[in-house]
This record gives sequence, C-alpha cells and structure tokens, in this order.
Amino acid sequence: MRDFPPELAILREKVFRKLEKVFQRFGFDPIDTPIVEYWEVLKGKYGGEAEEKLIWRFKLPYSEREYALRYDLTVPLARYFARFRPKLPFKRYYIGRVYRYDNPQKGRYREFWQADFDIIGCLTPEADAEVLNIVDTVFSELGFRGYVIRLNDRRLLKGIFEEELGLSGSIVLEVYRVIDKLDKVGLEGVKEDLRKLGLSDAIVDRIIELIGIKGGEEVLDNVEAKYGRNTDVNVALGYIRDILDLVYNPRNMVVDLSLVRGLDYYTGMIYEVWLKEFNRSLSGGGRYDDLIGIFMGKSVPAVGGSIGIEPLLDVGLEQGIFSLDTVTYTQVAVVYIGGVFKEAWRISRILRELGYNVYIDLARRDFKKQIKYIAEKNIRYLIIVGERDLKEGKVTFQDRETRERILIDLEKLSDILKERIMN
Amino acid sequence: MRDFPPELAILREKVFRKLEKVFQRFGFDPIDTPIVEYWEVLKGKYGGEAEEKLIWRFKLPYSEREYALRYDLTVPLARYFARFRPKLPFKRYYIGRVYRYDNPQKGRYREFWQADFDIIGCLTPEADAEVLNIVDTVFSELGFRGYVIRLNDRRLLKGIFEEELGLSGSIVLEVYRVIDKLDKVGLEGVKEDLRKLGLSDAIVDRIIELIGIKGGEEVLDNVEAKYGRNTDVNVALGYIRDILDLVYNPRNMVVDLSLVRGLDYYTGMIYEVWLKEFNRSLSGGGRYDDLIGIFMGKSVPAVGGSIGIEPLLDVGLEQGIFSLDTVTYTQVAVVYIGGVFKEAWRISRILRELGYNVYIDLARRDFKKQIKYIAEKNIRYLIIVGERDLKEGKVTFQDRETRERILIDLEKLSDILKERIMN
Repeated sequence: MRDFPPELAILREKVFRKLEKVFQRFGFDPIDTPIVEYWEVLKGKYGGEAEEKLIWRFKLPYSEREYALRYDLTVPLARYFARFRPKLPFKRYYIGRVYRYDNPQKGRYREFWQADFDIIGCLTPEADAEVLNIVDTVFSELGFRGYVIRLNDRRLLKGIFEEELGLSGSIVLEVYRVIDKLDKVGLEGVKEDLRKLGLSDAIVDRIIELIGIKGGEEVLDNVEAKYGRNTDVNVALGYIRDILDLVYNPRNMVVDLSLVRGLDYYTGMIYEVWLKEFNRSLSGGGRYDDLIGIFMGKSVPAVGGSIGIEPLLDVGLEQGIFSLDTVTYTQVAVVYIGGVFKEAWRISRILRELGYNVYIDLARRDFKKQIKYIAEKNIRYLIIVGERDLKEGKVTFQDRETRERILIDLEKLSDILKERIMN
Repeated sequence: MRDFPPELAILREKVFRKLEKVFQRFGFDPIDTPIVEYWEVLKGKYGGEAEEKLIWRFKLPYSEREYALRYDLTVPLARYFARFRPKLPFKRYYIGRVYRYDNPQKGRYREFWQADFDIIGCLTPEADAEVLNIVDTVFSELGFRGYVIRLNDRRLLKGIFEEELGLSGSIVLEVYRVIDKLDKVGLEGVKEDLRKLGLSDAIVDRIIELIGIKGGEEVLDNVEAKYGRNTDVNVALGYIRDILDLVYNPRNMVVDLSLVRGLDYYTGMIYEVWLKEFNRSLSGGGRYDDLIGIFMGKSVPAVGGSIGIEPLLDVGLEQGIFSLDTVTYTQVAVVYIGGVFKEAWRISRILRELGYNVYIDLARRDFKKQIKYIAEKNIRYLIIVGERDLKEGKVTFQDRETRERILIDLEKLSDILKERIMN
C-alpha cells in the first residue's frame, strides 16, 4: 500500500483532471461503484490464480456474508450495468482503486489506481477504435514518448491455434496465461511453462514462433494467406482492418501475436500500451462480449480499457514529463510583524474571498520563522504586514521568484495580485 | 453500499471540486492514504462500540496479519504524520471513502465519503477558528440555508461535570457517548441510558438541564460566573472566546453544551454543522491533541473537521440548491445521414482536438435512432452531416435548447462553436 504526500497527490490530481477531460471529450461520463463487493459478484470472473491467491476476500467477525475488495473496475461495471440497465450505448469512465494480494515489489502495490473507460452496447469496430483513440490521445497529450499500442484479437490466436496446432477448449486459455508472462519470464520461461502444460516440443516451438509475429498490415496479409479459411481468423482479420482504418494514428499501432492479456473474460480485440524502454505496459484492455451477460441473463457486447495510474506516474517521472516540484497549491502568504495579527487575518480573509490560495501563520510564530516556513513550502508571493507601514495604509508585496519587492497601498493589493497571478 | 450513476457522479464531482478549491484557498494541500490499514493501526482509537461492532476488520484466507478498512480519515492521517513527519504546521485535506459496519438505513451507508481538513502542529485558537471558517465558507458558498455551527469544548463539559456532579475519569467518556445519541433517541432516551450507567436520578436530571444550555456569549458569561474557578472550565472559556473573536461570521455560531461528539479522541474544541430542519449534521470535528502522539511517542496538537458527502448531497438536493439535471458532460453530437460516416468521424475528431466533448454514434444506427439517443441524453448541440450538404462543403448546426438550426460552411464550424459554447 502506498501513501501519497502532497507533491505526489498534487501531481496525481493534475493527471486525473487531464484523463477526465480526455474521457469527456470522447463522450464518456463518470460513474462510481463501491470498493467492497459481495464475493459472489467477483467469483468465477478472473480465472483460478486470481481467485485462489490474489483477490482480497474476507468475512468480518460479525458478518454472515463473504465480501471482496474489487479486483478491477470491469466486473463491478458489469454488475452496475445489470442493475441500472442504462440506455445503450453506455459510455462511462471511472478512476478508482483496485486490490490484488500480490507480493509487493518495486512499482507494484496491493492497492493501486486504475482509470477505466468502457463502451457497452456496440458490437462494431468503431467502438474498439474509439477505445484505442482514447489511450493514444491520453499518452500523446500527456507527452509520453516511445510508446506503441500493441494490438491482437483473441479470435485470431484461437483460430490459428486451432488450425495449425489442433488446440481448442480450456487448454487455449491456459496457453494464453503462459504467454501472458512473456515479459516477466522471457522466452525460455514461456517454453518451460508450455511444456508443463503437457504440450509436445514441436507444438511448443511452433507457439514460440507464432508469438514472434508482429508488424503492420503485412502481418494481417500473411496470416490471411495461411489461416484465412478459419472462421475465427477471418472475422478477426476483417475486424482489425476496420479498426486500423478508424484509428487516429495508425503509426502508433503494432499487430502483435504475443499479446494475450491475462484475464479470462476477453473475447475479441485486445490491446496494450507498451513502453519498450521500460518493459512496462501503461494501459491494457479489449473486448469482453460475454461478461455482462453473466449478470444480465442476456448477451451485451462491451469493449474498454484501463490505464494504470502508478505505472503512468512512475514512467512519466522517469521520462521527465512530470515533476514533483509543486509541493503546495498555496499562492500567497500573509506575513505579519508585531502586533498586527488581527489586520493580517483580515487581509488573508479578503484575499481568500477573492479566490486566492492563502497561508497565514496560526502558531504565533515570529517573523523569521514565518519566512523560513514560507521558503520551505515554496510559496511564491508574500504580503508583509508591518505595524509602521500599516499606519500609513501600506503593506509590502514580494515575489520570491522575481525578487520584486514593493511597498503598496493596501487598497491596491487586489489590483497588484490580479496583475501578477493567473488564477 | 451505494452506486453512483452519471447524474449523481457528475454532481458529486462538482461538489468535490468546490470543496477542494475552498480547502486550497485556506492554504491546505491534498494527501492520500490507503483504504486498507493494519488492524493494529485502528485498534484502541475509537472506543468499544466501534471496535466491537462497526470496524470492518478481517483476515484473508492467505494472510497472517489482520487488516481493517479505515473507519475515518483522522487515524490514517495520524499514522501518515508519524511516518513522514512533515514540517509544522501541516495543513492537509483529503476526500475519500470510509467504512462502518452500521445497519444500513435511509441516508446511511456502510461505505461513505468524507472530506477532511486538518491542521497539525498548532495549539492556538487561530487554528480552531480556521477550521470553523472553512466549514462556514463551504456551506455558505454552496448555498446551504438554515445551518448553524454548534460549538463546545470537551474541557468545558469535563470541568462542569467535575465541579458540579463530582464525575471524573472514564465515566465522563461514557456520559458523552450517551449524550451523543440525543438526536437519535431524544431526551427521554438519554435519561434512561444515563440511569443505566448507574447515575442517580438527581445527577441525571442535572445533566439533562446542563445539556439544555445553548446560546451566544452570554452562555459563556453564565458558565464563568458559576464554574469559573475550575481550571478546565476557565481554559475552555478563554479558548472559545478567542475563537469567536476570529471566526468570519460569529452569527453562525452557537455555544451548545449538548454537543459532545461520539469519538474518544477529542480533547478540546468540538463542533458540528447542524441543520435543524433536517435534524442532521453535515460536518463535525474538533481538537484531538493526543491522538498523533500515540503514533509518534511525543505529543503533537491537531485540530480538524470532516464533511459528510452523502448528507451534504442529500440535503442539498432536498433544499433545491443541487440538481440531478446534468446527466452528461457531452456538449456536441455529430450525427450522420447516409454513407458519410467517415467524414462525420473526421469532424468528431477535429472537434475533440479543439477541446469539445463530442458524441458520435458507434453502432451504425440510423438517423432517427441517433436523434432519439441524443434527446434522451440531453446533448445540447448537434452537427448534422448529410451527403447532399457535404458535397457543397456544408453541415447543419443545431441548438436543441434555442431551437436554432442553420446550414453552415464546414470551415466555419469551429467559429460557430466558439461563439456558442463556453468551454
């Protein structure tokens, strides 16, 4: 778990506001669901490992029912949707915490933040393209460099595995789960784990070859030439081509057969925003046309994505596009010398009513200590209220950055601030 | 637990932004702490009833240690403070969820939101006054009517009980807890519960009389005349007078001896923002000079307050100062007729890049269905892209509110929107 001190909380707030604005521009609205769900809501949605080791599930000493902390924002969305049955298409975003009882390690936490956006009710590649355009917009507008959006389709893999290797049914999901660990365990690790599934060396080698395929449109052509008779492959290829035709920046997209995504519920297009330099995914998602049906009793298509806030902050700080320099929102400090506290208090009140973020000492500290604190907090503007000046209706305005320091009429204070501070 | 559909999530976001702005104006910065804490962090801080019935505490099937969901934002703040030891005074705000395993009832949830603001490191009435000024500013600027800020001091009560009734030690805390239920159980209920504590009828009657005392400065004068020799009473009176001298709107304050607050950790000033009409408290807090010391091993004074988001939304909606009319952030819908989807898609992209919140149909629906959806979502502006108009480089701009409908050059579109939409 992680505490966020002000400099990190302020940075995160700025990122949240930016993400929200992008989601809103794409016609999405917010919803909110609880962090605690009944265990049965989450059960059976994520696959064995999650259920047996990773989901925070529990009873209270005084509860009959079993609860769980949400594992992602997607299953709660499905439950929400079944409850409210909003008009279709339903486009919602949601920034919130999720919980996985993983072993804590650098950059990974047991509680972390996700920003999710989903489109429910569209079975068209337009919706998939919109999801990809959102992540592309987010990362390009935040200033990230060197990312690619890896793209695949569960039906493509399934069809190829069927056609070429004769694999089908639950073994395919298990193969996915092994391939999903590629970035963590490497090719040799994947080989070993595939063998553990009981696959022959020949099949394992062929899977390794297949997941090496990546590139642009030419990959689609090659796959079509070889596996185009397979229905799943055919549908997937047409779908991916339609998507690539609608994305804002096709140059940022790479078709990558090694991309599988770990969760069971994906049914079609899947994607990841990948930073090779950091060997990290900043966002992932895809199409999950069957999940909502579990709660509804009837099939409802859906596609969406999720942005990992911790990876985004970590990488953004490392790339130098974010900084932790803003340690306070406070713009102005009203400092007092001598017995003029009440007048300084009155001035701070007026400035706050004008909308400025204002600090005034509450601890009856002397002038020197007030100044020291203000320097440490890096508050830029000072209004110094002194006994002598005040008798003449004046205060000192100081800009710690430009080192400007002027004696001004108290009446002019709000004009001076209006000139200097963009609010 | 509660789901927030878009209209409620949008309203809540607006309220959050307003609260944050007020906190920032008073020189506060945000922090964030996890929702899950180790049980031992919460243990012993809230009193018996909370620990035995209300705190969400649990082990996972695979955890050795016991966890708990935070019961308020104050104890996590104390833990945070002991960990980071930031410069004093430390002024932080935090809007987040907290958990109480209460019996769910109208307007009360097991997961709910609080907006907290605290000043750590100031033992002066200036800090208490700043806390009261914040809540006063919040509720007056949000437009709430008919609220008063009830004010008391734990030392005042303690001194009076000691002086007049000979009560001291843990029985005083128990008496507080009974009095705290006054709004729920009424005077007769309090009487009964006081008797259950083993107090004589004479003492019970006297307590009932005492907690009937409320009013302005005259209350302080009367109390001083009667109990002024008691040190606690004397300190508290001086303190409250100093506070009243520094609050922005003394008219909104009422000294009220029946206010005790339920939690064990308060040590001095306590307050509640009270709406008589609704018999509800929208905010409460006070001074807790000993709590942080538990985590630090040395005494650190603190004072703060908490705003209950659910009561605030409920009462605001009932008073008509909030509405749920905004069901979407989306401003513009790009509608297409016939085979011009790709051009409509291109236009929606441009408008989004200009910063507008734009909807475009993703489900290949016909014109009539697009219009129906837009009306249901109450999206105000429409850009209608038709095959014939498009050949002449034109689209239709429509304002659903003013019923204006004009054919314009595609090139003029951004000018028209800039004129009509305040962004």
